[in-house]
Amino acid sequence: MGKQKNLDCLILENLRGQDSYISGEELARKLKISRQALWKHINSLSHKGYDIVAVPHSGYKIISTPDKFYPWEVQRDLNTEFIAREVYFYESLNSTQDSSRELGLSGASDGTVVLTDVQTKGRGRMGRSWISPKGGIYFSLLLRPEFLLLEETPQISLLIALGCVKGIKEATGLDVEVKWPNDLIFKGKKLGGILCEINAETDRVHFVVVGVGININSRDLPPEATSLLLGTGKKFRRLDIARKILQAIEAGYLKAQKRNFSAVLKEWSRFCMLWGKRVRVKISNRTIEGEAVNIDERGYLLLRQDNGFIERVSAGDIVKVIPVREGFL
Amino acid sequence: MGKQKNLDCLILENLRGQDSYISGEELARKLKISRQALWKHINSLSHKGYDIVAVPHSGYKIISTPDKFYPWEVQRDLNTEFIAREVYFYESLNSTQDSSRELGLSGASDGTVVLTDVQTKGRGRMGRSWISPKGGIYFSLLLRPEFLLLEETPQISLLIALGCVKGIKEATGLDVEVKWPNDLIFKGKKLGGILCEINAETDRVHFVVVGVGININSRDLPPEATSLLLGTGKKFRRLDIARKILQAIEAGYLKAQKRNFSAVLKEWSRFCMLWGKRVRVKISNRTIEGEAVNIDERGYLLLRQDNGFIERVSAGDIVKVIPVREGFL
Repeated sequence: MGKQKNLDCLILENLRGQDSYISGEELARKLKISRQALWKHINSLSHKGYDIVAVPHSGYKIISTPDKFYPWEVQRDLNTEFIAREVYFYESLNSTQDSSRELGLSGASDGTVVLTDVQTKGRGRMGRSWISPKGGIYFSLLLRPEFLLLEETPQISLLIALGCVKGIKEATGLDVEVKWPNDLIFKGKKLGGILCEINAETDRVHFVVVGVGININSRDLPPEATSLLLGTGKKFRRLDIARKILQAIEAGYLKAQKRNFSAVLKEWSRFCMLWGKRVRVKISNRTIEGEAVNIDERGYLLLRQDNGFIERVSAGDIVKVIPVREGFL
Repeated sequence: MGKQKNLDCLILENLRGQDSYISGEELARKLKISRQALWKHINSLSHKGYDIVAVPHSGYKIISTPDKFYPWEVQRDLNTEFIAREVYFYESLNSTQDSSRELGLSGASDGTVVLTDVQTKGRGRMGRSWISPKGGIYFSLLLRPEFLLLEETPQISLLIALGCVKGIKEATGLDVEVKWPNDLIFKGKKLGGILCEINAETDRVHFVVVGVGININSRDLPPEATSLLLGTGKKFRRLDIARKILQAIEAGYLKAQKRNFSAVLKEWSRFCMLWGKRVRVKISNRTIEGEAVNIDERGYLLLRQDNGFIERVSAGDIVKVIPVREGFL
């Protein structure tokens, strides 16, 4: 499903402006189509999940909009400069990352977003799979951060995680935390994750494709995972959350672009649930432990080890988190 | 053209073992094919550029082998552990980089090599085009350096450049120099270049595709470029050079893998033509000048500026090189 602003969108725009019924005759005239054609489009919108009532002699009225990532819905009331100028939505995809990479290679513009309802081969970090049932937000964002050196690209994961947390807060009021490097945590369980794939030369970043997967209304999840629905008992409108996330991501990105990444880091740090806790980090084939104290300007995790030395960890998996007083078993 | 070890190869192997003629009857029996089939294959080999004479009542004899990157030729007498276990050769390609990236994404093995005689859309660093007429060596090497962090990937360009210089020296005796970051210089002019493209997560390098373009017997080149032929007046066998380069690259790679990259750097440094010279480097939208004094362990160029400070340059283009005494105009 592409990005075209078609007749369906125009019909929706006209219906949305109205509290009362809008007559089919009037609408057809306005759009310069036949009433027959209008009826066909209304029908097509019903199939897309829009609840539109048609009352003889009164006309059409829109009752509800589906919680679907149609490009025109994602872009509606979206207050961004460049993110989601181009939006692609699919009911199902192998992986939004693969589609976005293809778009990146073929020259798609900075900020292009690919969303899907279901991923059949969703990917997580380190080549793991990412379970992507219905009810989640799954999207990939294509970024062309020409201002970044290759070694600065971890900034992107951090600012995306921050954007997710802030976007969810704004749309739902719920408090989500981040766990270094890029997990989203809700009530102690994994709510979502971020995968950041880079296409670069050693001295030039071509593009970055950031995959975001967040469990919103999902039910069938592994025991270590949660969703906003499972955590609160309430359903949420994914579209509203996705829009707020995209806006928050852009705000952070523009800061980084203005070489003010420290502001992003400081904010990220406020939402991180690791500080003051003892963590065990798996780094390829070794494991280190220590108290998580901060991240540095590059986004490396700083661990205070038992001997007092601070170790900087550029990459790894946190396999255990324990409050300091308890210590490890 | 794939990698299969086919009948053609077997015929070549048999012919190569012989100084004298080998009878068609004997060869056909050995390969369990008809003499008719054998003749067809000999004919196909002639079309591939092999000079094979057929003398009635004596048999076949191979006179010469074409200077073509057929997989079986590249792999013949090649002394490597993993590089060029898989080889793909094409008479013409848009870009060996694009083919290798596709191979990388579809799971091709570490060390896979793609070669071509001509590139129609050859790419250089920073999105520039790379003129790739007949007579050059153009290949891309797929590497999966799981031992490297993202910020260490510039190691790859340096060790590839070193491998090229050493391989050319070994095959031809000629002295080629390197110019940071990854130009090959012969008699003061550009002989070749290296393009290193990375596919990674922020905390895991998936694969690197390294493109190498070297002008060997090429004639039609821009004025700032040269070839071994233009520089010496002699033609060289590309196959021999390519094999030596692949071997030398592997040797450097295995050192880096054993965390002994400093040995590679030290050697690279010996071939660098910048030391003691004043250089002007363009770094995105600014330019800095100074005396090139060394590279650090990350492969950054160290420039001593007029105020005595040493500046570390991670990426950039050297736009001017001048011996120190002359200074800049």
